[in-house]
Amino acid sequence: MGENIGAAARAMMNFGLAELRLVNPRDGWPNQSAIDMAAGAFDEMAKVKVFKTLAEATADLNYLFATTVRPRDMAKPVVNAQEAAKQTRKRIGKKQKVGYVFGPERTGLENDDVALCHAILTIPTNPNFSSLNLGQSVLLAAYEYSNAAAVRSSAAKNIPAQQKKINEVIARLEDELETGGFFKSKSLKPTMRRNIRAMLARAEWSDQEVRTFHGIISALKKK
Amino acid sequence: MGENIGAAARAMMNFGLAELRLVNPRDGWPNQSAIDMAAGAFDEMAKVKVFKTLAEATADLNYLFATTVRPRDMAKPVVNAQEAAKQTRKRIGKKQKVGYVFGPERTGLENDDVALCHAILTIPTNPNFSSLNLGQSVLLAAYEYSNAAAVRSSAAKNIPAQQKKINEVIARLEDELETGGFFKSKSLKPTMRRNIRAMLARAEWSDQEVRTFHGIISALKKK
Repeated sequence: MGENIGAAARAMMNFGLAELRLVNPRDGWPNQSAIDMAAGAFDEMAKVKVFKTLAEATADLNYLFATTVRPRDMAKPVVNAQEAAKQTRKRIGKKQKVGYVFGPERTGLENDDVALCHAILTIPTNPNFSSLNLGQSVLLAAYEYSNAAAVRSSAAKNIPAQQKKINEVIARLEDELETGGFFKSKSLKPTMRRNIRAMLARAEWSDQEVRTFHGIISALKKK
Repeated sequence: MGENIGAAARAMMNFGLAELRLVNPRDGWPNQSAIDMAAGAFDEMAKVKVFKTLAEATADLNYLFATTVRPRDMAKPVVNAQEAAKQTRKRIGKKQKVGYVFGPERTGLENDDVALCHAILTIPTNPNFSSLNLGQSVLLAAYEYSNAAAVRSSAAKNIPAQQKKINEVIARLEDELETGGFFKSKSLKPTMRRNIRAMLARAEWSDQEVRTFHGIISALKKK
């Protein structure tokens, strides 16, 4: 919804976050409702970029937080907004690029979106009344980011590879697994794919390690 | 605006705050726009109480935070939302009742409202884009309250008097000052009154101390 995008932009700019990326916005882009809700925030931010898929939108990033209402049953670290902010500052200090991923207001992120991310960011609310909307979630995440102290740049070693390269090597692995008849049950295939992704992406491979894994796949195939 | 009241209620309930008091709401009460915006929050909270003045609304409370966009030039401590939450938890542990005071969306709190409060709560935002709305300010204050650890009850000594008693003794002093010709300049009178209030309320008198001050006024008058 345009209104939610506008509210998110306003929340971001209040705490100095100026880069918003949209994935396949329902109401198209640019959008007047978004502008009306943003209280001028779009004039202050970098030009909003629009992408077809989450994978494309995050291709150049090194680390992603998936924001969800509650932790999902996935093998990923779960953090609150304060901890996410602290980790983000640390990664930025190491020249990494970090993204916060938010889902549509009503449905939230799909499991496949969460699977693309490294960690889950969840904001604990009243168990009897949990009703944070999208703009509010963005506000709290941005607020904590702004509160967290910047971390001085340390040696930029062991940078995780960009998402694009991780996605490529995992996609290649899946193709090979498909060819090899790995996915026996069609109904279980989506879950199995997510589990594989979680298992591999968690390691935060460097570029060199991605190349190594490509090598591993090639080597196994030859045999 | 009803919508802002609803958004405030929703923000509060997300973090378990269930007591909302309204001062002279523009659109009357109950209000359908508020209910529409609240996503069911009013069903979960204590019955909303409506008052004619801020003094009446806060009569039974011991400590008040005035929420403002920027610190005013008043002799009061200025804290951020995290610090306010920490202090609130401490006071609650000592059996005190604490209030967060918010002004209307567009105009904010008037100086006379701020003067009634003990401390100023201000949320630092992007200096180039400071556009927190009322619901967002309530959300951040409530979020920090929820994050702050509850403080175990300690001995309930030196409880500040209820606002009502403080207001009474200060009002009495002002009457006496008026009678005595203290306020020579009519145009400066509001500022002088605020300064006197700030000067006295800052001390957080106990019931006993309020009685003592009544005694002081009486004693001075006799002479």
